[in-house]
Amino acid sequence: MKFRIEKDTMGEVQVPADKYWGAQTERSRNNFKIGPSASMPKEIIYGFAYLKKAAAYTNCDLGTLTTAKRDAIAAVCDEILDGKLDDQFPLVIWQTGSGTQSNMNVNEVIAHRAQLLKGFTIGESEPFIKANDDVNKSQSSNDTFPTAMHIAAYKLVVEHTIPAIEKLRDTLDTKAIQFKNVVKIGRTHLMDATPLTLGQEISGYVAQLNYGVKALKNTLAHLSEIALGGTAVGTGLNTPVGYDIKVAQYIAAFTGHPFVTAENKFEALAAHDAIVESHGALKQLAVSLNKIANDIRMLASGPRSGIGELLLPENEPGSSIMPGKVNPTQCEALTMVCAQVIGNDVAITVGGMQGQYELNVFKPLMAANFLQSARLLADACSSFDTHCAQGIEPNYKRITELVDNSLMLVTALNTKIGYYKAAEIAQTAHKNGTSLKEEAIRLGYVTATNFDAWVKPEDMV
Amino acid sequence: MKFRIEKDTMGEVQVPADKYWGAQTERSRNNFKIGPSASMPKEIIYGFAYLKKAAAYTNCDLGTLTTAKRDAIAAVCDEILDGKLDDQFPLVIWQTGSGTQSNMNVNEVIAHRAQLLKGFTIGESEPFIKANDDVNKSQSSNDTFPTAMHIAAYKLVVEHTIPAIEKLRDTLDTKAIQFKNVVKIGRTHLMDATPLTLGQEISGYVAQLNYGVKALKNTLAHLSEIALGGTAVGTGLNTPVGYDIKVAQYIAAFTGHPFVTAENKFEALAAHDAIVESHGALKQLAVSLNKIANDIRMLASGPRSGIGELLLPENEPGSSIMPGKVNPTQCEALTMVCAQVIGNDVAITVGGMQGQYELNVFKPLMAANFLQSARLLADACSSFDTHCAQGIEPNYKRITELVDNSLMLVTALNTKIGYYKAAEIAQTAHKNGTSLKEEAIRLGYVTATNFDAWVKPEDMV
Amino acid sequence: MKFRIEKDTMGEVQVPADKYWGAQTERSRNNFKIGPSASMPKEIIYGFAYLKKAAAYTNCDLGTLTTAKRDAIAAVCDEILDGKLDDQFPLVIWQTGSGTQSNMNVNEVIAHRAQLLKGFTIGESEPFIKANDDVNKSQSSNDTFPTAMHIAAYKLVVEHTIPAIEKLRDTLDTKAIQFKNVVKIGRTHLMDATPLTLGQEISGYVAQLNYGVKALKNTLAHLSEIALGGTAVGTGLNTPVGYDIKVAQYIAAFTGHPFVTAENKFEALAAHDAIVESHGALKQLAVSLNKIANDIRMLASGPRSGIGELLLPENEPGSSIMPGKVNPTQCEALTMVCAQVIGNDVAITVGGMQGQYELNVFKPLMAANFLQSARLLADACSSFDTHCAQGIEPNYKRITELVDNSLMLVTALNTKIGYYKAAEIAQTAHKNGTSLKEEAIRLGYVTATNFDAWVKPEDMV
Amino acid sequence: MKFRIEKDTMGEVQVPADKYWGAQTERSRNNFKIGPSASMPKEIIYGFAYLKKAAAYTNCDLGTLTTAKRDAIAAVCDEILDGKLDDQFPLVIWQTGSGTQSNMNVNEVIAHRAQLLKGFTIGESEPFIKANDDVNKSQSSNDTFPTAMHIAAYKLVVEHTIPAIEKLRDTLDTKAIQFKNVVKIGRTHLMDATPLTLGQEISGYVAQLNYGVKALKNTLAHLSEIALGGTAVGTGLNTPVGYDIKVAQYIAAFTGHPFVTAENKFEALAAHDAIVESHGALKQLAVSLNKIANDIRMLASGPRSGIGELLLPENEPGSSIMPGKVNPTQCEALTMVCAQVIGNDVAITVGGMQGQYELNVFKPLMAANFLQSARLLADACSSFDTHCAQGIEPNYKRITELVDNSLMLVTALNTKIGYYKAAEIAQTAHKNGTSLKEEAIRLGYVTATNFDAWVKPEDMV
Repeated sequence: MKFRIEKDTMGEVQVPADKYWGAQTERSRNNFKIGPSASMPKEIIYGFAYLKKAAAYTNCDLGTLTTAKRDAIAAVCDEILDGKLDDQFPLVIWQTGSGTQSNMNVNEVIAHRAQLLKGFTIGESEPFIKANDDVNKSQSSNDTFPTAMHIAAYKLVVEHTIPAIEKLRDTLDTKAIQFKNVVKIGRTHLMDATPLTLGQEISGYVAQLNYGVKALKNTLAHLSEIALGGTAVGTGLNTPVGYDIKVAQYIAAFTGHPFVTAENKFEALAAHDAIVESHGALKQLAVSLNKIANDIRMLASGPRSGIGELLLPENEPGSSIMPGKVNPTQCEALTMVCAQVIGNDVAITVGGMQGQYELNVFKPLMAANFLQSARLLADACSSFDTHCAQGIEPNYKRITELVDNSLMLVTALNTKIGYYKAAEIAQTAHKNGTSLKEEAIRLGYVTATNFDAWVKPEDMV
Repeated sequence: MKFRIEKDTMGEVQVPADKYWGAQTERSRNNFKIGPSASMPKEIIYGFAYLKKAAAYTNCDLGTLTTAKRDAIAAVCDEILDGKLDDQFPLVIWQTGSGTQSNMNVNEVIAHRAQLLKGFTIGESEPFIKANDDVNKSQSSNDTFPTAMHIAAYKLVVEHTIPAIEKLRDTLDTKAIQFKNVVKIGRTHLMDATPLTLGQEISGYVAQLNYGVKALKNTLAHLSEIALGGTAVGTGLNTPVGYDIKVAQYIAAFTGHPFVTAENKFEALAAHDAIVESHGALKQLAVSLNKIANDIRMLASGPRSGIGELLLPENEPGSSIMPGKVNPTQCEALTMVCAQVIGNDVAITVGGMQGQYELNVFKPLMAANFLQSARLLADACSSFDTHCAQGIEPNYKRITELVDNSLMLVTALNTKIGYYKAAEIAQTAHKNGTSLKEEAIRLGYVTATNFDAWVKPEDMV
Repeated sequence: MKFRIEKDTMGEVQVPADKYWGAQTERSRNNFKIGPSASMPKEIIYGFAYLKKAAAYTNCDLGTLTTAKRDAIAAVCDEILDGKLDDQFPLVIWQTGSGTQSNMNVNEVIAHRAQLLKGFTIGESEPFIKANDDVNKSQSSNDTFPTAMHIAAYKLVVEHTIPAIEKLRDTLDTKAIQFKNVVKIGRTHLMDATPLTLGQEISGYVAQLNYGVKALKNTLAHLSEIALGGTAVGTGLNTPVGYDIKVAQYIAAFTGHPFVTAENKFEALAAHDAIVESHGALKQLAVSLNKIANDIRMLASGPRSGIGELLLPENEPGSSIMPGKVNPTQCEALTMVCAQVIGNDVAITVGGMQGQYELNVFKPLMAANFLQSARLLADACSSFDTHCAQGIEPNYKRITELVDNSLMLVTALNTKIGYYKAAEIAQTAHKNGTSLKEEAIRLGYVTATNFDAWVKPEDMV
Repeated sequence: MKFRIEKDTMGEVQVPADKYWGAQTERSRNNFKIGPSASMPKEIIYGFAYLKKAAAYTNCDLGTLTTAKRDAIAAVCDEILDGKLDDQFPLVIWQTGSGTQSNMNVNEVIAHRAQLLKGFTIGESEPFIKANDDVNKSQSSNDTFPTAMHIAAYKLVVEHTIPAIEKLRDTLDTKAIQFKNVVKIGRTHLMDATPLTLGQEISGYVAQLNYGVKALKNTLAHLSEIALGGTAVGTGLNTPVGYDIKVAQYIAAFTGHPFVTAENKFEALAAHDAIVESHGALKQLAVSLNKIANDIRMLASGPRSGIGELLLPENEPGSSIMPGKVNPTQCEALTMVCAQVIGNDVAITVGGMQGQYELNVFKPLMAANFLQSARLLADACSSFDTHCAQGIEPNYKRITELVDNSLMLVTALNTKIGYYKAAEIAQTAHKNGTSLKEEAIRLGYVTATNFDAWVKPEDMV
C-alpha cells in the first residue's frame, strides 16, 4: 500500500495515500483496534457534516471565515451527506470518550478533500483549508460530538422510529375496530376470566403504543437542544458573539428540524441526560412491544395444542426438522429487539452517570447504543407490521368454542345472587366437568330462563 | 394466641382474634412467607383507602349502596388514612402478582372494622357490611390495585420527590449565583482544561435537575390516569353506568390531585407503562444526581492530596482508625441511592414487560420498587441539601493557585498565533515545568505585554 | 424522652438515655434520615458481632487486649447474636458508603453494654472498655464492614439459599421420575412440536437448578475470603503480627464456615467483586426460576381455555370479582422475586464498578441488595416448593388428547419418506382439519400399517 | 441482477444467481430487514461449519450418510472455516429466535456449494446433496444453533478474552513488583488516608483480574456442553444411537477444545443458562476493569491541577481546541467497553429468562451480545495493555510531595497516644495549615524524637 506522511502536534504519521484523513485519524486507527473497524455510526458522521457546514456559514457570517473557505467546506459536507465519502471514516466507537478523534477525522477529511476540490494538493506547507484552524473553527470536540449525537438521534427518532411505530399502531387500531364485536374469553393470571372482544384486547396494545409515542415526543424538546457554541468546557471560548444561536439556526435550516442552542452549555457537555431521557422512552416502547408481541404469539399458539385464537401470516417454513411447522418469527425478532433495547438502556445509563467535571467521556458509547435502539425499533416495527400485524386474523371457530365453554361467565351472576353462590356454581361445574347452566339450575340458585337472560357473553364486554 | 374462625369460598381458616382481617388475608400470610412480613408498602394501603371510600361514595350516588354502608366504609377508610390501622395489613409484596390478597386484606379489614363501628360483631351470619359484596362493590383487584399504585406513586412523587429535588436545585442555583465570578480551572477527561467559573460549573448541575424535574412532570399525566372502573378484564363488568368517571372525580377530590379515569382500561390492567414511564424519569434523575454528587466529592477531595477546590460541611468523624478524617458521606449516601434507583429501574422494566393477556401480574413488585425509588430520592436529596449542598464553600486559595498555574490558558492564544504554536508553548512549559508566559516569550511567539493582554483567565469564562 | 450527653472528636451529642449507642451513631441517625429507620440488615450487625468477638480473642492472644476486656466484649457479641440487642442498631443503609457509622454503632453498643455488664456506668471519664481503642482495636471500618458483608452473605447463601433451592430441585426431580412415562406434546416457538415426556420436560428444570447451584457454589471460595487485617487501606497498619490469619480462624470457628483471610487486602477493601460474583450466580438462578415458574403457569393455564396439562394446588380464592377462580399465585410470587433479583444485580454492578482508589464506598448498598436477593430466593423457593411444586399433578386426560391430536408426529416420517413429503402431509392435514394418518394414506405416501408402525408418540421421546 | 428459482415447502423464491443460498435464506432476507444486513456474527457461522462437519462424520460412522456425501459436506465446511464463503451468509441477528434461518442458510450453502465441488449444478431435480436430508441430517435448528453458540463463545473466550486479560494482568503484576517500594498516600472516600506503596495499590488490580479470570474459567465446563443430539425438543428424535456422544467428540477434535455432549438436552434447548453464567463472569470483569481504568485516569489526572501521581503514555493529541492536551484515552475506551458489557448482561438476562416450554427463542440475541462482549473485552484489554498499562510510570516527585505532606500519617500515633489525642493533632494541623509534627510537639503529646521514630510512612505500608 502507498502512504503519505502526515503531521500533527506530536509528530509524523504514515497515512494510506488514497485516503483523505490525516495524522490524528491514523493515530486513532492504530491505537484503538477494538472490535470491527469503522463502527462509529454513519449517522454521527452525517451529524458532523451538518454541523461543520453550519459552523462554516456562521463563522463566515460573523466575519471569521472567508466565503471561499465556507463554500469549500460546505461542498465537502454535502458530499459526505450524499454518502460519497463513507469509506473515509474508519474509526471505531471505542476510542476517546469525547469522540475527539472522530471530530478530527471529519476535520481532516473535509480539509484535505476541500484542498483537492479547490485544485490544490494534500500536504502543501500552507494549505488553503486547515483542519483545526478552519474546519474546526469556533468548535471543540466537546461541543461538536454531542451536537452530532443530538442531530443523529433526533433525525433517526423523528424520521424513522416514530413513523414506524405509528404505522404499526395504525394497523393495530384498524384491527381493533375491525374485530370490535368478536367476543372472546379474557384471561388474567393466564387463567380464564370474563369475556371481552378481540377489538378491546387489541385496543389495549394501541393505547400502549400511543402512550409510548407520546412519551417519546415529550423528550424531543430536550434532544433538540445542541451544545455547539460551548467549545472546550461550555464557556464558548474562542467563539464570536452570537455564534451559538446562529449556528443552531443553520443546523435547523439544513436538517429541517427545530434545533436550538442549549440554554446551559455546561450541562450539554458534562451530561447527556437528553440521551438518557429519550432512550428511556425507547425502553418504555420496548416494554410495551414485548408485551404485545408475546401476547400475539401466545394467542396464535397451536395449531392444535395451544390457544389458537389468532391466525398469523405464514412467512417461512418454521423448522429444519419438523415438516409443516410455522412459527411466530416476527414476534420473535421483535421481542429480541426489545431485549436489546432494554440492555442498551443500561449501557446508556452506566455511561450517562459517569460524567466527570466538565465532560462526559462516554459519548460514543451512548450515541451508538441510542442509534442502534432507535434503528432496530424502527425496522422491527416495520417488519412486524408488514409481515405479521397486517395479516392477523381471528380463528372465529376457536374463539367461539372457548368463550362458550368458559366458567368465568359466572361473574355475571355476582350482582344477582352474590359472590359466594356464584363461586359455588363455578367450582361445582369445574369439578364435574359440566356447564355453568346445568349446575346453576341443579343447585337451585338460578332458573334456566334467568340464566339465559343474565349470562350473555356479548353483554359482558 | 386467641383465634376466631373465618370462612371464604374455600373453607375455614383460623385468624388471630385481635385482628380485623379475614380468611383470605390469613391464607396469604400462611402461603407467602417470603421476606419480612408486612412489606407491602403502606402507601399502597392508603391508596386503597382513598379508592374504597371513593367507590363507596360513587356506588351510593349511583344507587347501588346505601348511605349507611357508604358512611361506615368511609369512616374506616379515614381511620386507615389516619394511620390508626397500620398493624392490620400484614401481607408481603411477594404474593399474587395482581395484589388480590392485599385488596382482600383491605376489604376484610374495612368490613370487620365497620361492623364494630356500627355496633355489630365480627362473625355474624349475615353481616351489615360484606367484604366482597359491599366494600369491593363495582371493583376487582385487577382495577383497584393499579389504581392504588397510581394514587400512591403520584402522591409520593408530587408531594415529596419533586419538592425535595427542587429544593436541592434551588440551593445549587443560589450557589451558582453566589460563585458566578469565582474563576477556576476546568477539567475535561479529568485533565486540566480552559477555565470557567465555579458558578458556571454548578449551573450545569442546576440545569440537569431542571431537565430531570421537567422530564418527571411530563410523565404525570399518564400516572394520573386510573384503572378503576375496568373491573376484571377492563370491560367494566358489574359497574353501574358512569361509575368510572365519577369514582375518579371522588379520588381527585379526596386526594387533592387531578386523577382521571383511564381512557383505555385494557391497557390500564394489562400494562403498567405509566409506572415504567415515570420511573424512567426517576432513573434519569439518579443519573444526574450521581454525576453531581460524584463531582462534588472529587472537587472536595483532600484535604492535602486531592483536588481540594470545595469545602464541605464536616458532619461526622470519618474514620474509626484515622483520626481527624472527614468524608463526603452525604455524597456517598446519595450515590448509593442512585445505584438503587438504577437497579430498581431494571426490576420495573422486567416486571413491566411481562404482562400476559388481560393482566400484568408483577404489580406489587413494580409498586414497591417505584415507591422505594421515589422515597429514597426525596429523602436523599433533602439530606444532601441540608447536610451538604447548603454548606458548600469554595476553597478560594486553592482555586486561585490551580487556575494561575494551568497550562490550558494557552487556548486563548489559538486565535492569535494558531493552534500549532500554542501547542508548542504548552508542551514546552509542561516538559520544563515552567510557566506558559516564560515559554511563550522564550520561543518568540508572543511578547510579554501581549501575553498579559491575551491570557486572562477571567476573560476566558 | 430522656437524654445523656455523649462526646466524640467533634464534640457533644444528645443520645436517648435508654440506648447503648454513642455520639457517632446518633450523628448518623440525625444526618441520614433516608428511608425507613434501622434498614441496615440485621445480618450485617450479626456479622459484626462475630468479627468483633474474633478480633477481641485475637488481640488477646497476641497480647494487645486483656482477658477481662476480651471476655466483656465477647459477652456482648453473644447477646447481639442472640438477638437481645436488636433495637440498638437504628442506622440506615443510606449512610456513609464505607459503613463506618454502623461499625461505630456496634463499637459503641458493645463498649457501653460491656461497661454495664462489668458493673460500671456509661459515661465514666475513663471507661473500662473504649469503643475505638478496645472494641475496634486492630480494625478499621474499611476492613470490618466488608468482613461483615462476607460473613452475612456466605452464611445466608449456604444456610438458606442453597438448601431451599436444592429442596425445590429435589421435589422437581421426584416429579421428573414420577412422570417419566407421561408422553405429551412438545412445544417450540410456542407451537406444537414433537412429543416428549412430562418427566423429560421437568428434568430440564432440574438440570437448570443443578447448574445454578453449581455456579453459586463456584463463587463461595471468593466469598469466604475476608478483609479483616487490612485496616484502613489494606496495609494492615496497627495490627499485630499474625493477626489477619488468626482472626479469620476465629471467625471460622465461631460461625462454623471456612472463612480465610483474603490473600490481597487491597482488593478486599477497594473492590467487592466477590459480592458481584456471587450475586451473578443468584441472578442466573433468577433467570432459571423465571423460566421454570412461567412454564408451569402456562402449562397449568385454563381451566378451560388454556393449555391445561398441569394441575396446581388450589391455595386461595383467586379473584375478588370472579367466583371460583384459582390462580398460579406461587408462580407469580416467584417470578416477581426473580425480577427483583435481576434488578438488584444491576444495583450491585453499579455499586461494584465505582470503587475509587483504596476504597469502594457502595458497601451498604451492595450488602443490602445481596442479602435481599439471597433471602427472597430462599423464601420464594421454599414457598413455591411447599405450596406449588410438591402438589403438581398431570392432567392426564388433557395431555393424551393433545398429543394424539398433534400434527408434529409427522416428524417421525422424515427418515422414512423425506422431509418434503412429510411436510406435505402435515400441511394438508392442517388445512383440512384432518388427521395425519388420513392424509398420509390419501396422498399415497404411507400405508395404514406403516403409519401405525412408524408414528408412535411413545417411540419419539 | 440475475436470479434463479429456488423452492421450499412453501413454494418458489427468486435467489441471486451468484449466491449459494436457497429459498429459506432468501425468505429470511426479505422478511427480516432489521438493522444492517449480515449482522449474524461470523463466529456463529464458523461454529455451524464445525458442527456440520462433525455431524457428517458421525452420520457416516453410524451408517446413515455415505462417505462421498460426508467428504463433500466437510470440504465446504473447511472452505467456510477458511473464510472463503463469508459473503454467503447475509442474514441478520433479528430473525427467528431459534436461529433456524441461519441454520438453513448454512445447510443451503453447503448443499449447493457441494453440488458444484462435485461437478454437479445447482437446481438439479434430484441433487447429490440435500440441505435438509443430508446436511441437516440428525439435526434440528433447535440443537444446532445452541451448539454453534457454545462453540463460538467457548472459542472466543478461551482463545482471545482470557489471554488478553491475562496479558494485562501480567503487565500490571510486573508494575506491582517494580513499584513495590514506592510509598504513596492512600485515599479512602477520595480523602487522604494512611500510606501504601504504589505496588500494593496495583497488586489490588492484579488480584481483581485474577479473581475475574478464575470466575470466568469456572463457567467453562458448562459452556463446553453442547446440545447437539437433542434435535427438535431434546429427545434426540431421528438421531442414530450413540450420535450425541460421538458428534461432540468430533467437534472437540476439530476445534481442539474439550466439548462434550450436554447431560440434559432439554435444558440445553430450552434454557441458555451457560451463556448467562459465562457472561456473568464477563460482566464481573467489566466491573473490575472499570474500577482499574477509572483509578488509573484519576491518579494520572493533571498535569497541574489533578492528582498527578501517574504518568501515562502520550498517544495522541487530546484536544481539537486546547493545544498540548493529552488525555487518558485508553482508559476511556476501556470504560466504555465495560459499560457496554454491563448493558449486554441485561440484554442476555432478559433473553435468557424468557425461554418458553421446550425452546428459548432469544438465541441469536444472546449469542450476539455474548460474542460482542467477549470480543470487546479482549480487544480493549489488549489495547489498554499495549498503549497504556505497559507505559505507566510513577511521577516520583509528586508522589513524595503528597505523602510527606499528609495528615493521615497521624494514624501511626493511635497505638502510642490513643485515637482522641491523635485526632486533635490532625485537626489542629488541618486548621492551621501546619505539619503534624509541629502540632504534636506544640500540644505536648509527642516529643520530636518520638515523632520521627513513630511516624515513618515507609513503616506504615
